[in-house]
Amino acid sequence: MSRINTDFEEKLRAAAEDTVAAINAALSQAPDADEIARPPRLVEAMRHGVLNGGKRLRPFLVLESASLLGGERAAALRVGAALECLHSYSLVHDDLPAMDDDDLRRGKPTVHVAYDEATAILAGDALLTLAFDIIAAPETDLPDRAKTELVLALARAAGIGGMVGGQALDLAAEHAAPDADGIVTLQSMKTGALLRFACEAGAIIAGSPAEERRRLRTFGELLGRAFQIADDLLDLTSDSQTMGKATGKDAARNKATLVGLRGQPWAESELERLIEEATALLAPYGERAESLVAAASFVAWRKS
Amino acid sequence: MSRINTDFEEKLRAAAEDTVAAINAALSQAPDADEIARPPRLVEAMRHGVLNGGKRLRPFLVLESASLLGGERAAALRVGAALECLHSYSLVHDDLPAMDDDDLRRGKPTVHVAYDEATAILAGDALLTLAFDIIAAPETDLPDRAKTELVLALARAAGIGGMVGGQALDLAAEHAAPDADGIVTLQSMKTGALLRFACEAGAIIAGSPAEERRRLRTFGELLGRAFQIADDLLDLTSDSQTMGKATGKDAARNKATLVGLRGQPWAESELERLIEEATALLAPYGERAESLVAAASFVAWRKS
Repeated sequence: MSRINTDFEEKLRAAAEDTVAAINAALSQAPDADEIARPPRLVEAMRHGVLNGGKRLRPFLVLESASLLGGERAAALRVGAALECLHSYSLVHDDLPAMDDDDLRRGKPTVHVAYDEATAILAGDALLTLAFDIIAAPETDLPDRAKTELVLALARAAGIGGMVGGQALDLAAEHAAPDADGIVTLQSMKTGALLRFACEAGAIIAGSPAEERRRLRTFGELLGRAFQIADDLLDLTSDSQTMGKATGKDAARNKATLVGLRGQPWAESELERLIEEATALLAPYGERAESLVAAASFVAWRKS
Repeated sequence: MSRINTDFEEKLRAAAEDTVAAINAALSQAPDADEIARPPRLVEAMRHGVLNGGKRLRPFLVLESASLLGGERAAALRVGAALECLHSYSLVHDDLPAMDDDDLRRGKPTVHVAYDEATAILAGDALLTLAFDIIAAPETDLPDRAKTELVLALARAAGIGGMVGGQALDLAAEHAAPDADGIVTLQSMKTGALLRFACEAGAIIAGSPAEERRRLRTFGELLGRAFQIADDLLDLTSDSQTMGKATGKDAARNKATLVGLRGQPWAESELERLIEEATALLAPYGERAESLVAAASFVAWRKS
């Protein structure tokens, strides 16, 4: 294993640990003056949904893009924790019986199985709301201008025209298979938008000029496309034990994927191409961009 | 009917109309540069959930408390629209089969009946997310400091320690009836927190000093308690045609209410007392507080 890979894995592990600590702190704190009480069972269900042993790739991207552009790690950690709460809410709701109806997530019972459906709906709602709380809270040491930009960019990445919209298109795709363009739109919304936000957030945290913000945003888009193709490949080729969730579901549901339409060899060369393009984009930063470049490769070639 | 009541009803109607226009504008706009596409069916389901003929009491409170303290109406309208999106999401999720399982809302089919359960979950998620989008967006003409405070106060009023927490306590109350204190906590979270936010938001929009913000906040708390007692009374005494939704549900579910514990005469005198206290709180503003005082009476003595 090369030095770069070892460094990357160590950094990813450290980012995950720090993110979990930040989320834990937000969930453990006593009710603020603006709150009345925190029902323990709801907080437990939120913990179950968010403290699930995930790789915390999105917070890692926030941390590394902020670090690349000179943003403070403490603030980036808070934004990463917010993003992970938001990502986790989407998984909790996506797993519900009326949605994907999944019993397992990373080898553990999903929230509606471990608790009940109503609690899972509310835990998801509360995690989504907490994401905006964490960004706006005084503990996040950023100028109000940056907080406003982060709230807006996150709401757009996560809302009608982003992640939730992508989930709606995904539901529709089970009835009428989209063409290749339709699949690209669906995927760029459902999974791409949050990955794009993760990279763009670093530039907002660092207070970078518009050009750098655009560059990181494009990097995030490319990484998002690679992520989705890798995900479709894994659904096709991996087994449920490695993935900690059901696999082969796309085919079972007749769900159209780019890999399904164009085949595995195309997918593998497309991954190569996307990673090359993403790497070239960060070339101006030289070795300082090593972790982000490694993250793009990791996303493309991961095994689970 | 007295002049005050006529004025109040006219202002409430105008506020509702302007709020609906503001929500419509937010839902109708083409995808922003930060968005990818807006799935029409999801937007329709969101419209169904939010453009439902509601009285728009919360936006009215935002408008009137902002106006009392010198805040701009245009900004208050945006914040009111955001709050109404958030309130509506909570109704859409509350009506779901796994929650209250309601088929009717203001005499119309609920979102999961008109569309489907998955779409109702996503429409609720998207309305919640849109609330934060609307506050942070450039179209909301407020300093970044005020936007950050509004996002934080709204997230706290709506989250674990506020509305969603109250919904979780409400689920638990079906299995183990809370005592009077427990009911007060539950209700102050489930319905009180957003009404409190509505009044406090006016002070944030106006950039008022802490003392005025506290005063409006307390006014909102009293109004919230009156609202809930009136709601419990209506559930006991009104019919479903007047309410546009099922009534008598609290008793049918054995759900503990203060009115159930303490009786209707107590409830009526408690309403008098709360309205007197709320009115006294705004006495320093004289006639300028007329609409807010009328709103408190309206909340206490409404017939639906």
